[in-house]
Parts: sequence; structure tokens; C-alpha cells
Amino acid sequence: MSSALLEQLIDAFRVLPGVGRKSAQRMAYHVLEREREGGRRLAQALVDAVEKVGHCSRCRDFSETPVCATCASAARDAHLLCVVESPADRLAIEQATGYRGLYFVLQGRLSPLDGIGPSELGLDTLDARLGEGEVHELIIATNPTVEGEATAHYLSQLARGRGVRPMRPAHGLPLGGELEYVDRGTLSHAFGSRSEVP
Amino acid sequence: MSSALLEQLIDAFRVLPGVGRKSAQRMAYHVLEREREGGRRLAQALVDAVEKVGHCSRCRDFSETPVCATCASAARDAHLLCVVESPADRLAIEQATGYRGLYFVLQGRLSPLDGIGPSELGLDTLDARLGEGEVHELIIATNPTVEGEATAHYLSQLARGRGVRPMRPAHGLPLGGELEYVDRGTLSHAFGSRSEVP
Repeated sequence: MSSALLEQLIDAFRVLPGVGRKSAQRMAYHVLEREREGGRRLAQALVDAVEKVGHCSRCRDFSETPVCATCASAARDAHLLCVVESPADRLAIEQATGYRGLYFVLQGRLSPLDGIGPSELGLDTLDARLGEGEVHELIIATNPTVEGEATAHYLSQLARGRGVRPMRPAHGLPLGGELEYVDRGTLSHAFGSRSEVP
Repeated sequence: MSSALLEQLIDAFRVLPGVGRKSAQRMAYHVLEREREGGRRLAQALVDAVEKVGHCSRCRDFSETPVCATCASAARDAHLLCVVESPADRLAIEQATGYRGLYFVLQGRLSPLDGIGPSELGLDTLDARLGEGEVHELIIATNPTVEGEATAHYLSQLARGRGVRPMRPAHGLPLGGELEYVDRGTLSHAFGSRSEVP
């Protein structure tokens, strides 16, 4: 390698997810050859975001302000609260559905072996919030994995304890999918939860 | 989107090659969730490289110093000069082969339609260098594309005009490849250039 700074840049790119040695090298060369201005902008955006983006004190999603725009909005239905594992899940729901309630972002899932318990996920805050009486429905949209299901179970207990209805999004065959390629767990669940044609 | 700075970071990531909206989003979330320190390091490395990495005045490769370490090294064979299109090509040759000569990096290829002529590739500098008499062999390692071949043809004329032997790396079947999957151009070239088993 002809330049220590270049080598350092290639190394630094490898913190990004899915970026190995070869992609990092391609990124570094691309920035130096064609996108020096874009590289400067990226550096500034990184510093700004890392320094200034914290968490909303209500929903734990990323926010520059103590309370995020969604939580502060009067246009959202405060009776509905949707729990998701990550900000990316929240964004996916926001973009795909017409959901107009509020969110609570766990920033993880219960995983005792990794030392992630209820307090790491802010479940004490959530419990207190459910106790305020404003939330009527808790929509538990954790991922359908073993840990996600365990978290969902814990959350539904928490909701019932506070007199709030725990809800789950429907699980079953994905729309537009072919039966042949659907995984066995999903197919079996879809048959178990079959409903009469209306 | 809950944060303008986050949105700005996602946009900024899209200057990287092969990074679309979805990957940029994943990168931004990853940095904010798990790699704030790595994000800071990446920002610093970007600024350092963009500000301080220029081009070697001898070989046009990236370098922090006016003349790069390879060109300044007394251990390299100055009779051999290998011309490549990009720093990535140079690195690939350096890592894979035992080549101990010097390099000349075009930072592109002849492409009159895009306004890239001999002067944009520093071929006047190269011509003057060939005229100095130190170089005996010019190894032309441009890519085997139409534009790369045109560039190679131009370079070989340049070399002959200065009494330097123009050379090309061997082209043919890749080692470890299966005949069935080799493209027609390569297969046809390999048959045309067949040699007797020694």
C-alpha cells in the first residue's frame, strides 16, 4: 500500500456492516478518485450525527431533541402504542402501513445470555407509561424469532398487569409469495390459524 | 424519519459505490446503535485522506508525499515500468505477483467520447520518462476492454517511438476455471494463441 492514510481509511470503512476488506478498498479509492467533496460531506454528517443524535426520552428512538417529533405530535393517536425492536423496524412500519399511533423502540430484545434484561430495554419506563392509563392497546411488533417471541410474551404480561390489551400483528403466508417457497414454520402456523372464507 | 441529521447521514452514505438507500440506512443505524467510536474514526480518516492524499509526481498513484515510497525505493528495478489503469489494479498486481519493477497509474483509460485524451492520463509525462532511457520494458497491464485495448495500442506506439519494448501480460484461460464457463472471447483467444506442450 502506497499511503498510510489510505490504509487507515480502508480500515475505518470496515466498521460499516457488510463491508469487508475488498469493499472498503473500493470505497476508499472511489472517494479519493471521484468523490472528495462527497467524502468531506460524509465525514461532517458522521460527526454531526454521532455527536448530536441521542434518544427520545418517550419512545427511545433516535432523536436530536429530548422528545422526538412523533411523540410530540398532537396528530398521533396516543391510545395506540407499538413496540418494535429497532428504529429500522419502526421506519418500515411507518412507511408501509397507515398506522397513526405512537411507538416504543426497545433497541434490542430480551437476551439473558447476553446480559440484556428488562432494564436494558427500558421496560421500566414502558411499564410506568402503561400505568398512566392513556394507552389502550399495546401492539407488540417484535421479530418472529425465539428471542423476539420471548420478549413479546414478557411484554404481553406487562400490558395485562396494567389493564392494557396486548396485540400482535397477524402472522401467516406473505402476500404474493408462492406456497412452495414458504418456510415450514410459517406454513404450519398459517394452517393452524386458518379462517373460514367470508 | 425522526431526525434530520440521521436523514442527512443516510444521504451522505450514498456517495459510496454500491450503496443504495437501504444499505445507507443500515449503515447509519449501525453506526448510531453500535459504532459511534468507529463512526468518529471513519470521519477523521475521511478528512485526513481527502485533505492529505494527493498523487505521486512520478507514477500518479495516490501518495501523501510528492514522490511515493515505491518510486523512491532503491530496491525496485527501474528498467521495468508497468502501466495500469487504476490504483486498485496496481495493488492487485503488487499483492499477487512477484513484480519488483515500477508502476505508472493512468487513473483512467483513453476515452475520446468522455473527453479523456493522452494529456488527461499524463501520457506526456510518461513519454518524457521513456525518453530518459532508464526504462527498457513497458508492461502494459490495461484492462482487456475495448477502451483498455485502445489505450494499450496507443501506449505500445509510444514505447516503440522511444525504443522501449512494449509488453502485455499473457491472456488466455484463467487457472482453476472450467472451460464450460469461460466466455467466448477468452476461449477463442486462447485457441488462437495455443502453444505446443513442452
